[in-house]
Amino acid sequence: MYVILVYDVGEKRVAKMLKLCRQYLNWIQNSVFEGEITEVKLKELIVLSKKILNERTDSVIIFSSRDQKWLDKQIIGVEKSDLSNIF
Amino acid sequence: MYVILVYDVGEKRVAKMLKLCRQYLNWIQNSVFEGEITEVKLKELIVLSKKILNERTDSVIIFSSRDQKWLDKQIIGVEKSDLSNIF
Repeated sequence: MYVILVYDVGEKRVAKMLKLCRQYLNWIQNSVFEGEITEVKLKELIVLSKKILNERTDSVIIFSSRDQKWLDKQIIGVEKSDLSNIF
Repeated sequence: MYVILVYDVGEKRVAKMLKLCRQYLNWIQNSVFEGEITEVKLKELIVLSKKILNERTDSVIIFSSRDQKWLDKQIIGVEKSDLSNIF
């Protein structure tokens, strides 16, 4: 399945979330990731992110689609993921 | 059509982008919006955001789907949009 994941977590947890999400998905902008992932791997990612998150203050939203073909992507301005190797 | 819009813009332009996007879509998290929008209205939003953006440093990504039914949404932690009336 294809997912878009966006997170909004407390500053102290940003680095951990970033590192975790990068192991499963492609970073495309700020706190936004996308990618093809199996249901099992997505469940794993959710379980692991719950260990990082403060569920009373932080938020992660995952949009998923069975196939990427149902989604069009349009980028205005710079494509930040081009820079992802720098970090 | 149904869209998810995420932006990553310089601090000086955040307030303007937030205000603009709120006129067309629902704020769901940090710099993330979603909603049902016509193609014409989406074009309008893109034209207006280009006036705000610095296209060499800022980035806006728009995912669109003909129908919301192709996308599932899962929220972990707090649903930040509940707070949207406060701002």
